Amino acid sequence: MKIGIIGLGLMGGSMALALRNKGLATQLVGTDNNALHAAQALERGLVDQVVPLEDLMALVDVVVLATPVDVALPLAQTLLDQTQGHILLDMGSTKANLVSAIQNHPKRGRWVATHPMWGTENSGPLAAVQGAFQGKACVICDRENTAPDALTWVENLYQNLGMHLMYMKADEHDMHVAYISHISHITSFALANTVLGKEREEEAIFELASGGFESTVRLAKSDPNMWVPIFLQNKENLLDVLNEHISQLRKFKACLEKENKEYLQELIQHANGIRRILG
Amino acid sequence: MKIGIIGLGLMGGSMALALRNKGLATQLVGTDNNALHAAQALERGLVDQVVPLEDLMALVDVVVLATPVDVALPLAQTLLDQTQGHILLDMGSTKANLVSAIQNHPKRGRWVATHPMWGTENSGPLAAVQGAFQGKACVICDRENTAPDALTWVENLYQNLGMHLMYMKADEHDMHVAYISHISHITSFALANTVLGKEREEEAIFELASGGFESTVRLAKSDPNMWVPIFLQNKENLLDVLNEHISQLRKFKACLEKENKEYLQELIQHANGIRRILG
Repeated sequence: MKIGIIGLGLMGGSMALALRNKGLATQLVGTDNNALHAAQALERGLVDQVVPLEDLMALVDVVVLATPVDVALPLAQTLLDQTQGHILLDMGSTKANLVSAIQNHPKRGRWVATHPMWGTENSGPLAAVQGAFQGKACVICDRENTAPDALTWVENLYQNLGMHLMYMKADEHDMHVAYISHISHITSFALANTVLGKEREEEAIFELASGGFESTVRLAKSDPNMWVPIFLQNKENLLDVLNEHISQLRKFKACLEKENKEYLQELIQHANGIRRILG
Repeated sequence: MKIGIIGLGLMGGSMALALRNKGLATQLVGTDNNALHAAQALERGLVDQVVPLEDLMALVDVVVLATPVDVALPLAQTLLDQTQGHILLDMGSTKANLVSAIQNHPKRGRWVATHPMWGTENSGPLAAVQGAFQGKACVICDRENTAPDALTWVENLYQNLGMHLMYMKADEHDMHVAYISHISHITSFALANTVLGKEREEEAIFELASGGFESTVRLAKSDPNMWVPIFLQNKENLLDVLNEHISQLRKFKACLEKENKEYLQELIQHANGIRRILG
């Protein structure tokens, strides 16, 4: 199979490495609207060649869309317009807007809406990681709208990369990722801004920062070009979670103000229940 | 030197391992008001013997106080009452209440108020870690109130463990740790409670949780018996940081509500500045 990848950053680049490592592509062709990223991807050998977007479809059997989700939205429709039986998939972190944008397209069946649940706070082709997807979950949304051959090929692809598949409606997916991914990024960004406000006064305090601090603010390094469109596309779900999170923080605030030791103990014991999930 | 350790949990246990590993104690004597912890510490060989608290001072030259900070407060005064030239130090995460409680004690000079900046989300003797303090910062507070021989001995101790020393007033320390440690714990606890509320509805969503989620909620596993007293002792500083953090979260909320892409981009770019600190 000749495979094209649009967007050679963290996700697209890691997909390229995985496809090559597993011998799943006879040829890898990439495209990226950032000339530096395109050159870096070639130099790292992520893809065999880089071509302009308009030349890609003619050269490949499968197209993997790995751009930020705002770019993916119009591109998905263009790709469907041009497809001659390709298998088309995207790797975006929001799914409802995408499946809604393509739902009435006559070639809708060629599209597989996927979200491999892996990422880091880094971006660009140099951030791509070998073995990235191994052992993680991959969500496939609205599979009933995808042609059986395209669905089967993409299922096999992700299983070959060591992922276990989960199936959801796109709306359900977007609500879930608001809870277990998007809110974590918001809190990290906000926490970074909280402490960076203080940094102006006294730089030395950060010598004190140990593992706990790094852990909670690591995601604050993440790329705005990736995350702004995700947050805006998942706005409604994210606002629900954010409101709930602020109300949870206010409980801690009230406990401190009233020195309510018992309730503070209770809140923390409840939070300890996260061990059930994280192990 | 014969060294006594009061509290054989994460901090005291890790200190015992470090002292033994560096050959800094001819004998290690422990005490713990939790009988199971005392037995586990003996079984792991963290200490050579466990004795009742009231017998400890007669057996050792140095006492390391490694209990939760609420227990440390009255204990510090008892230990100073009983000391016959011992070197006494505590490892607590809050310092202002402690130094204030002992400031007028006639034997105040025997006390060294320290905070080695290391920890994990685990607790108890089984959570103690070899090499825990290596490469981290250790804060020594209000050193001018400590006798030179006691100060020098403790400075050498931490340097032998591979720590670099920082000196601060206790008030200054407490304000700084509110920003770079305590607030991270509050946000993790609150985030865990936010998502655990959802878990009741749909357990499956947590199969989706990947590294980013784990990173931001890891600290939510932390022990309430350690953290409730820290939060209450550092209440004023923590309320300042918590108010600031909630106001930072509200900025993200307003951006989402108004779909203000430019300001959202700006907030995230500002948060990216955390790379200056975390590297």
